Amino acid sequence: MSNTHRKPELEEKLANILREVLKRVTPNTSERLKILHIIDEVKQKILRKAYEVGVNVDVSVEGSIAKDTWLSNDKDVDVFIHLPKELGKESLKTVGLEICRSACENWIEAYAEHPYVQANINGFRVDIIPVFKINNINEAETAVARTPFHTQFINSRFNNRMRKEVRILKQFMKGVGVYGAEIRVKGFSGYLCELLIYKYKSFMNLLENASKWKPYHVVIDPAKCYSNLNEVRKIFTDPLIVIDPVDKKRNVAAALSIDKMAKFIAASRAFKENPSLNFFFPITDKITKSEMIKMRRRGFKTLFIVLKCPKLVPDILWGEVFKSLEGLSKLLEKYDFKVLSKDAWSDERNIVVLAFQLENIEIPKIKKQIGPPIFLYESERNFLKKNILNKDVASGPCIEGDRWVVYKLRKITKADDLIRIKFTEAKHGPHIKTQNFEVIIGEKILNKIDTDDFRVFLKKFMSKKEDWI
Amino acid sequence: MSNTHRKPELEEKLANILREVLKRVTPNTSERLKILHIIDEVKQKILRKAYEVGVNVDVSVEGSIAKDTWLSNDKDVDVFIHLPKELGKESLKTVGLEICRSACENWIEAYAEHPYVQANINGFRVDIIPVFKINNINEAETAVARTPFHTQFINSRFNNRMRKEVRILKQFMKGVGVYGAEIRVKGFSGYLCELLIYKYKSFMNLLENASKWKPYHVVIDPAKCYSNLNEVRKIFTDPLIVIDPVDKKRNVAAALSIDKMAKFIAASRAFKENPSLNFFFPITDKITKSEMIKMRRRGFKTLFIVLKCPKLVPDILWGEVFKSLEGLSKLLEKYDFKVLSKDAWSDERNIVVLAFQLENIEIPKIKKQIGPPIFLYESERNFLKKNILNKDVASGPCIEGDRWVVYKLRKITKADDLIRIKFTEAKHGPHIKTQNFEVIIGEKILNKIDTDDFRVFLKKFMSKKEDWI
Repeated sequence: MSNTHRKPELEEKLANILREVLKRVTPNTSERLKILHIIDEVKQKILRKAYEVGVNVDVSVEGSIAKDTWLSNDKDVDVFIHLPKELGKESLKTVGLEICRSACENWIEAYAEHPYVQANINGFRVDIIPVFKINNINEAETAVARTPFHTQFINSRFNNRMRKEVRILKQFMKGVGVYGAEIRVKGFSGYLCELLIYKYKSFMNLLENASKWKPYHVVIDPAKCYSNLNEVRKIFTDPLIVIDPVDKKRNVAAALSIDKMAKFIAASRAFKENPSLNFFFPITDKITKSEMIKMRRRGFKTLFIVLKCPKLVPDILWGEVFKSLEGLSKLLEKYDFKVLSKDAWSDERNIVVLAFQLENIEIPKIKKQIGPPIFLYESERNFLKKNILNKDVASGPCIEGDRWVVYKLRKITKADDLIRIKFTEAKHGPHIKTQNFEVIIGEKILNKIDTDDFRVFLKKFMSKKEDWI
Repeated sequence: MSNTHRKPELEEKLANILREVLKRVTPNTSERLKILHIIDEVKQKILRKAYEVGVNVDVSVEGSIAKDTWLSNDKDVDVFIHLPKELGKESLKTVGLEICRSACENWIEAYAEHPYVQANINGFRVDIIPVFKINNINEAETAVARTPFHTQFINSRFNNRMRKEVRILKQFMKGVGVYGAEIRVKGFSGYLCELLIYKYKSFMNLLENASKWKPYHVVIDPAKCYSNLNEVRKIFTDPLIVIDPVDKKRNVAAALSIDKMAKFIAASRAFKENPSLNFFFPITDKITKSEMIKMRRRGFKTLFIVLKCPKLVPDILWGEVFKSLEGLSKLLEKYDFKVLSKDAWSDERNIVVLAFQLENIEIPKIKKQIGPPIFLYESERNFLKKNILNKDVASGPCIEGDRWVVYKLRKITKADDLIRIKFTEAKHGPHIKTQNFEVIIGEKILNKIDTDDFRVFLKKFMSKKEDWI
């Protein structure tokens, strides 16, 4: 670890923190054995089934398990079934999927670029994914087909020290809320963490560098695929650019949002200056009803839209949820409600909650509307025709400066009325748009939903403070 | 009168209207005799006093009386006393003023560029103004010294038909609220009306032209003082430019505000299309308390600041009043109150009222404050230092996009509190700033002031509609 300019006390404090983190996040032998056992079982079933149906397959484990960079208590296992390419594209959905299904008893079919199987085995979520055997990344026709090359790249270059650094980094990212490339998070993927350690060698050296990052100004090319980084800037326009060593046309950080990049930068700087275990393991508070009441009395105006959760895989679901969140926010602003902040929560199963903090739930009845300048005759004529003897006009029309002005009565002055009346007028995810919904204001939301996970979400949504502050 | 493209019915209607206007605004013989009598008396007293003190003076009547363009029931008479220039500047204030004072029993001293005397004689306001005898406008050292040249210019060029057109125009301007160059109105002066008729020959032809005006795009040079109007545009930047025939360096319309110019343009067009006596003699309604209550219930939020009227001549008073009105409006906006409209009223004697229509009297407690971007370390440090453990922070700090954000509690959420606490923080007219004041919300203002004039003002302020609509 780099220790440029750090005082000995700080250095020791830091070492203790990182040691403690490692202790907590490194899987122990029993956990490793458990996973090996699951993998072994799945593999055997797959090979048996493949033999039965007469297909020559290879089976591989991919992802953080294969790279030995997973965090203790992470429950995700990725198993790939490699089919001969000669079987043709359709085979992934037919015989490929059939073999996947044979690997376990309880499975559901999931879908990314093509179908795959998700199984729950002894509490682990095992994704079993059919792909084609390929020797070269250029043959990869789906994002998931690149995964084995990532595994290979990392494993051929990583030693145990680097794996430790990756585990520390991943836990840091989890702690500050930026870990995961899924749509719900739009943060840093596991592979991105690995590449950052590959580039910067250690967690602390990465933080030293990241603390000086500026979104849209960082280009990292860990395997030096490009001779000229200006060339890279012309291809990608993302806040952070990290060239994939196995496919230089791909930005590994493409899914990262500017918010999450900014949070990581700020947290890096803060940790450097004042390291603490809190960054890795923040205290997650659950909000109480009396806190909600207190915050309402302080002036918080909170509006919730509660919907039944449409049956969609998480990335699709969250894509739609965020689209509706944005669309409804724009609807509110269009009708002059000022949205201070917004966020969404879902158990990805039964319920979706869109949450808004508004400056006001009820806005003034009267609105000033600026009309045309007096020297545009046609516009003047239309404006006057529309606004004289109009029962929605509260006062005017009159001239202010060189323009006509009229004071109108707003038809809708309450945010909950607006949502109820104009919900479908907003831009939506298609499966959200058609759901029945309920509008709830303030602490009453806790009568409707009171799971721990929701209360944690709501605590963060209300208090807003970054956990590590 | 020009009658381009007008239908015979309209033409007849128009002729009837203008005939009726003329009937009402032309002074009759008894009124003329009364004024002549007053002038005669004043003149004699002045000449007698001048003889006594041994100064050789000329006496002249100026303004609309001298030009025979005044409106029946106008009560303003301007009498000029011309002193020999050799007496020196100070003489205007000493012997000049002494002679002025001799002209009547009841007088007050007024002040424009130098002191003069204002007398009330048989219900007429007679201004008696000492100036120097000059033969050439270039010798004029004050604005008022130009007046005799204006009188001369108009009288040497006007016939009775033109005087009728001027009277119609002046009454039209009065009716639509744009007559008078004083600070309170910032409208069209009498001399400006005369020059417009001189240029356009008739009231209706002026309206034809004015209805196509665009503020900041009109240059009128009635006596063709300039050979090139582009030259004029370089000298003056006012909404309307009308070159003074007796002094080409002066824009006669310099005092005209864009609002009043725009109102005249729009009213010209409206009158042309649908002529009516209403433009000349609008119905002036007085507001009632129950109307005020009804408007409050409709959603109008009205705030009044009532002050003792400082003892100042009207132009100075209104200059200060409008400065304070603007300053307080900016103060309100600075503290996030949205000002829909504002105006001021005064009896110019006892009381000044500053009136505001606000979107809301009370604004939300919580305010979102956008902080620095996360890549400006020094700003970040200051922002966080200021906003962590700060009791005015309601939630945050957190990161949104690439910026720090904090949600703060407003210290002042009521407009009346703001005015009471921060009144002197606003930009003010100096004599307004130091007055005691009272803040009154809504219809209670009528408990404080209920003169007819104020009720007429308030009716206009609340209903906003241009009278002629």
